[in-house]
This record gives sequence, structure tokens and C-alpha cells, in this order.
Amino acid sequence: MIELDRNGPPLTTQIADRLGALIQSGQLGAGARLPSVRQMAARLNVSTFTVIAGYDRLIARNLIEARAGTGYFVIGAGKPYAADFGAALADPVDAVGFALQALDSSGAHVRSGSGFLPESWLSEVVPGALIARVAKARNALQAAAPAQGHMGLRRQLSGYLAGVGIVANPIQIITTIGATQALDLLLRTLLQAGDSLIVEDPGYLFYSAQARAMDLNLVPVPRLADGPDLGTFEEAVKSFKPKAFVTQTLLHNPTGGTTSAANCHRLLSLAERHGLAVIEDDVYGAIAPRGATRLAQLDGLRHTYYVGSFSKLLSPALRVGFMAVPREAVDRIVGQKILGVLATPSLSEVIVEAVLDSGRYVRHTLKISGKLAQHRQRAQALLTEAGVTLGPADGMFLWGRFEPMQDSDSLVRRALEAGILLAKGSLFSPTGRYRDYLRFNVAHSCDVRLGQFLRSAASSQPKAGVHYLRPRG
Amino acid sequence: MIELDRNGPPLTTQIADRLGALIQSGQLGAGARLPSVRQMAARLNVSTFTVIAGYDRLIARNLIEARAGTGYFVIGAGKPYAADFGAALADPVDAVGFALQALDSSGAHVRSGSGFLPESWLSEVVPGALIARVAKARNALQAAAPAQGHMGLRRQLSGYLAGVGIVANPIQIITTIGATQALDLLLRTLLQAGDSLIVEDPGYLFYSAQARAMDLNLVPVPRLADGPDLGTFEEAVKSFKPKAFVTQTLLHNPTGGTTSAANCHRLLSLAERHGLAVIEDDVYGAIAPRGATRLAQLDGLRHTYYVGSFSKLLSPALRVGFMAVPREAVDRIVGQKILGVLATPSLSEVIVEAVLDSGRYVRHTLKISGKLAQHRQRAQALLTEAGVTLGPADGMFLWGRFEPMQDSDSLVRRALEAGILLAKGSLFSPTGRYRDYLRFNVAHSCDVRLGQFLRSAASSQPKAGVHYLRPRG
Repeated sequence: MIELDRNGPPLTTQIADRLGALIQSGQLGAGARLPSVRQMAARLNVSTFTVIAGYDRLIARNLIEARAGTGYFVIGAGKPYAADFGAALADPVDAVGFALQALDSSGAHVRSGSGFLPESWLSEVVPGALIARVAKARNALQAAAPAQGHMGLRRQLSGYLAGVGIVANPIQIITTIGATQALDLLLRTLLQAGDSLIVEDPGYLFYSAQARAMDLNLVPVPRLADGPDLGTFEEAVKSFKPKAFVTQTLLHNPTGGTTSAANCHRLLSLAERHGLAVIEDDVYGAIAPRGATRLAQLDGLRHTYYVGSFSKLLSPALRVGFMAVPREAVDRIVGQKILGVLATPSLSEVIVEAVLDSGRYVRHTLKISGKLAQHRQRAQALLTEAGVTLGPADGMFLWGRFEPMQDSDSLVRRALEAGILLAKGSLFSPTGRYRDYLRFNVAHSCDVRLGQFLRSAASSQPKAGVHYLRPRG
Repeated sequence: MIELDRNGPPLTTQIADRLGALIQSGQLGAGARLPSVRQMAARLNVSTFTVIAGYDRLIARNLIEARAGTGYFVIGAGKPYAADFGAALADPVDAVGFALQALDSSGAHVRSGSGFLPESWLSEVVPGALIARVAKARNALQAAAPAQGHMGLRRQLSGYLAGVGIVANPIQIITTIGATQALDLLLRTLLQAGDSLIVEDPGYLFYSAQARAMDLNLVPVPRLADGPDLGTFEEAVKSFKPKAFVTQTLLHNPTGGTTSAANCHRLLSLAERHGLAVIEDDVYGAIAPRGATRLAQLDGLRHTYYVGSFSKLLSPALRVGFMAVPREAVDRIVGQKILGVLATPSLSEVIVEAVLDSGRYVRHTLKISGKLAQHRQRAQALLTEAGVTLGPADGMFLWGRFEPMQDSDSLVRRALEAGILLAKGSLFSPTGRYRDYLRFNVAHSCDVRLGQFLRSAASSQPKAGVHYLRPRG
């Protein structure tokens, strides 16, 4: 019936896979009885335990069933699902469709628009031995984390934050499913439907998408080279009485800019005077220059809600994010977290705790910074040659104007057909501006196919035409 | 300065911990310079690598810093946080406070009110070797899961569901952070503020808490021994035009009851006739009797949104839940998931995939069922002797009336002071009924201290008094 390869995969796996193939192909039809465990063990010259384990897997795959006292029988066709699943056919021109594409690595070969680092850049920072050790440690799998997050990680984060000048007691720290959930929880806690939220234009695409889903009123303020436009900011505060402001102080996404220390101070003064909560998203902070000024540092977590994440620079598979918030806000935010997800996965959190404690994270982010600098140079050369006008930039992204781009939606769709994921500028604009801009992840933008695609797109588009007017930063 | 124990923990850990203790205690003050790596290595007779790794950990803990070219120096007081963190001081008399207590295992020694199994019951089902193998496999840490969830797990779930009679293509399956997030996403997708939701009375406490936070209108229907009261259900459907109904068909929490197959059929007919979405929460399904009828099975996922979880029976630390939903609803729900958490942790999901594939989960749940049956008998004896009137029950919980209980809030608070976590009946009632009921987790309710506490509570309370009226199931 089947034969085993003594030098191949585990015998249990071979038994399950080979019998499974016979069932899937129809050679063993529904109702067919499998040899008894004893018979099969004798035929294959393996132990009965091995056969039982193999049959168990086939039961788990719903291909056979055990009938008490009679034996093992093949079930139905064994194909409860068709072949129609696979890469999502999402349209990458809106925020959710773009996220679907960015997360599905089967979607494109050249992931220029992605917000993630290449997998190979992250392959060494969390060694298998560390995970095995952490998993074996008491309670890593059997105990839920407290709702606020695993205390060992919160202690490590307190130390980590102190290193960038932010004094946060572990009781002010709440772990989350990435920065995305931190933002979701903060918006839900600090604002209600109809309240106004100041966002940057351009700025990270998710803030606007999340805020719109909650029926918040978006108040865009232009993002300039040294931070948000303070004049417009002050006007917006006075006119719209917003409840909160969300910003990336360091290595701003998409522009790569950094808010100057002086502007940080002025923003905080305005926020304080007008009772505005400041949400500071610092997911790229670990690769920012040492000594950079953060709002949370100046403010001392009085009005500032600081958000961080390990999804970008450590592992997107752990989904560990966190926030450090004013002490009096902790209970309300944890209450929201409980209603949304009850608790976050403590296995992920003990792994990040161990990585931080080992000192690996700091060394790793230094390495990443160096690699990004190398790739940035190459990407700048490639993109400039392809006709993209780039601004000064730092960190993971380049923000560039691609003047030949008349219809960014159709360009993005054509790119995906060619296996290239692009992030169009207007995704990052709550006002729909920056239609002739693209955001490039430098780690994914050194591929000649990207340059070729852009050059051919440029030559196939009419050069003339009305250009969209937009304020320049 | 410090000495190492050659038979103790890893030398790196010893160096970090012992120097750390000197700094924390103030013996090494701010600004003090540590011996150079070379000096320290010579003094301790270890390699320079060991010293560097130890110093790295102290940097990560923010106790020392490296100054380029000069050496390692002690930073400030080294105590960015005070000693005031610890077990949450939550009041376990409301849903969120109760969840905080239930998740914090430091809070009570006798966890009778908990919804989780004892850690020792889960210690063998996910072996460390399996995690190590899965973690080493390609992409387990470096790649994000697609927004809908890791495809390998969704395939396994499709097979698992087929085994209980539910035909769900992997493209209809969405993974979540436990069942809690599945419910949150479903309520957000299917209902808007002001819409009505039918809940059971009594029923799982979180549905009502989540619905209230979303400003939904709660329509309670009494839960009887064989399922929701169909007469009231039909009236409620006609009077309030609810958009959805949430129920636990099998091993209902808190009563332990199961909806009969005939009632399942009638519920679905009513739901179909009135265009009602049915949310079926089946988190205890894996320990339900084989052949039990589920709504999703009868309905074929046309109007039914099926929710499952591995937090209760496999591991609360992975936070893997899922739902199987009508095909046309997938995109909207995944869109909500993206805005809430972007993606779920793929490390957790590949672990559950491997456990399902190995056949371990089915064997494990059989074992758990057997253990619960044993403990149920003991808990029934102990609670009956302590004066609790128990109904017939199955699964993880016993639902009992404790007549001497005049003020359940004060009883629950006094119990927590005595190290006993109780779940008061009114937590499970959207109408605030069942004030003299308690829910007991049989796995945590065989402890003599529980019996002693209840008996002494009974004798210290006046027996007479007005009893709250409530309909009987």
C-alpha cells in the first residue's frame, strides 16, 4: 500500500502524508477500511505507536475516522475546501486593500511599497535557541498575560524607554497587538464619534482610515520638513477644538523627516494650552539618531501617549506593540483592551522580553540602520535615474515625486500585475493630495525591475497635462 | 567586586544580575566606571565575550551605558520605576474588573471563578520541541501573517470543522486574538450604534459588556435548560427587529446547558425569516459530546457566524481564536480586523497549526473531558455540602444558587481578600438577575478552602430576608 523511506522525514509524517495522498487522489475511497494498527505496523516494520501517531494526523486532517472497536475508515472525499483560496485579490489603491497586499508576501516580487523589512534582514535577531528556552520556561504557554501585558516585558520596556529619555513606570505601559491596536485603543478611549482629530498631511495612512471608521472628524495639518506646520496647527486647534493630535516625531512616514526640538516644544505648549492629547507614534524610533528629541520626553507623559512597536524592526510575526501613557488614563485604556482582545499573547511578549534583556535588540537596530543607509544610496540612484524626484530622507522610506504619473491608481494596478507593489502618495494624504508621489521602502527598492517599470511607465504617459496643485513642505 | 558560581546560572546572567544588584542597591553609584571588558574578563576568569554579553544586558536594563572609547559607566539611580506595580487592584464585581482578576494569576490562590483551566492541565499538549521546530521553520518569525490569518492554520481549521460537521472553506475562516476579538469584530461589522442585539440571560458576561461599549441595544432572552426561550425569542425578534443574536449552543457559559437539535432548527428558522445574523460562540465545543448539533452545521454558514478559540483548552498564552463566516461577509470583517490590529501573530498561528496537524489536540481534549468529569463530581460534593444548590451541568462550569448570599458584591470582595476568586451570578445577567448565583470552574473548585469560606459566609449572613424574584430555567 505504501512504502517508507528510512532516510526521509519522520516515519509518522510519511505514513500520514502517503496515506493522505492515496485518499486525496481517490485511490482509497470513502468508507474504505485501513489496515489495523497492528497489521500496518507489521507490514511497515515500525512500532504500533508510530502507526497510531500517523493515523491520528489523518484524523486531525479529517481524512479518516476511528470507529470504536471496528477500526479506521476513510471519510468522504477528503476535500472540504476547493482550490480557490490564495493571494487576496485586493485592490491596493485604498488603505485596507493596500494593507492586504503589503501583508501577503505571495502578492508581489518587488515589494517597494511595503512597510516591512525583507525577511532576510530579521532572520538572526531572534535565534531559535532563545525561543526554545523561553518556551520551556515556566508558564510561557500555560498562563495568560495580565490584561495590561506581561510584567517582565513592561519592566524591560521601562528600562528601554529610560534609555531614550522617557521616564515611564511599568504601570504606565500597556502592551498591544502592534502599534495598530495601540492607535485603535487610544482613539477609542480619547475620542468619540464626531470629535476632531488632527492628523498630518502627508502622514501614516492608517490613522485616517481608523479615524474615519470611528466617525471622527479629520483635521489635516501640512507636514513640513521640520514637523507639522505650526501656524496651521494653531489655527486648527482654535477653529475645531480637536481632542487629540497624532504625529510621528522621528523618521516620519512617509516623508522621512524629523520634527525639530524647538517645534516639539511649541507643539506641546499649544497642546497644553488647549487641552489636546498628543499621540506620538515612534515605531521607527529605534533607528533614529541617538539623542533625538521625542515629545514624550519633553512632556514627561502628562499629555503625551507614546506608541512603540517591535513589528517593524524585530519581527512582524510576534505582533508586539506597546504604549506608555499618563497614569490616570491606564485603567480606561486597559478596559478597552479587555473588551477588544481580552489579553495579548504572552508567548510573543516573553520572547521580546528575552530579546531586550539579552541586549540583542540594540545591536540589531544598529545593524539595520547601517544596512538601510547602504540601500538608501542605491535606491536613490535607481529612482532618480527612473525619473523620481526625491527629497532628503532618513530611515526606512524615500518620498518621491514621479511627475509622469497622471493616474496613480492605474499605475499602481499595472505595477502589481508586473509583480511590483507600489505605495501611492495619496494613500498618505487625508486630503487626497500627493497624487504624483510614491513612497519607497529603501530595503525593497534596489531592484532593477522597479527602475525598468517606472521608466517604461514614464515613456508611455503623456508628459503634458494639468498638474495637481499642492503646498510644498 | 563580584564572584561567579561555576555551577550556577549562565555566567552572562550572573555578571548582569550581580552587577545589577550592586547598582540597584547604590553600592555602584551614578557615574561610576566599570572595569574594562578585558580587566573584568581577567578578574573573573571568563572570556571577553561573556563580559560583553553581561554588560550588554545591563545596557538593555538601562543601568549602564557605553561611552565610545572611554568605557562603561553606571547611569543615574537605575530605578526608573517604583515598587508600586503588581497585581491590579481591580474590583471583581464588574465585567472588566473581573476579567482583570481572572487574568492575573497572582491575585488569588483558589481560582474558583476563573474561566481558564489550571496551568498544570495544559503543560504537556504543546511540547517545547514542537515550538522549537516550528520556530526554526522558514518564516515563522520573519514574515507577517496575511491579514485574514496564516493559511496553514486556516486549512487545518477547515479540516477540524469538517470533523464536527461544519463545511467551511479556508477562505471563509478568519483568525483572531481569541474569541473575544472575533466577537468584537462581528459586533462592529454586523451592527451599528443603536441597533439591537439578542443576548441570553444568563449568558457569557462579555457579550453584554462589548455591546454596551458600542452603544448597542441589548435584548435579553431567558436561557432555559434546552436553549434560549423560543417564545420570548420570537417576541423579541418581532418587537425589537434585532440585527443579530449571540449564543453558546454547547456547554453554555455559565449554565453548562446545551441547546437541543430541535431548538437549533427553530432558532435558525426564526433567524432566517426575520433576517437575523446568528453568532454561535463554540469555545467549549471541543469537549462537547461527539455528534452534538451546532447551529453552523444546520445552517451551512449562510446566516451563522461561527466562533472558536484555543485559549480555553490549548493555551491562553497564544491567544488564537477564529471565526468561520458567510463568504460574502469575509472582506468586511477582514477590513475591520486590519483597522483594529493589522494582523494576528503568525508565530502563535503556526504553533496551533502544528498541534492540530499532529493530532495532539483531539487526544488532549479527550483527556481534559475525563479530568473535568472527575473534578465535577468532587466539586459538586464540596459545593453541595457548603450549601450551594447546583443544577445539572456538563463541561467546565457549575452554576449554582447560594441562597445565604444577600449581597453578592460584598461576598465576592471578601472572598478575594481570602484569596478566593468568585464569579457572581449577576455578572452573567444583562438584566442584573441571578444575584444569588455563582459560577464555579470545576477544575478550580475542589479546594477545601472554598468550602470553608462559603460555609462561614453562610453562617455569618442572616437567613431571612426578601429573595430576589427571577424566572427559573
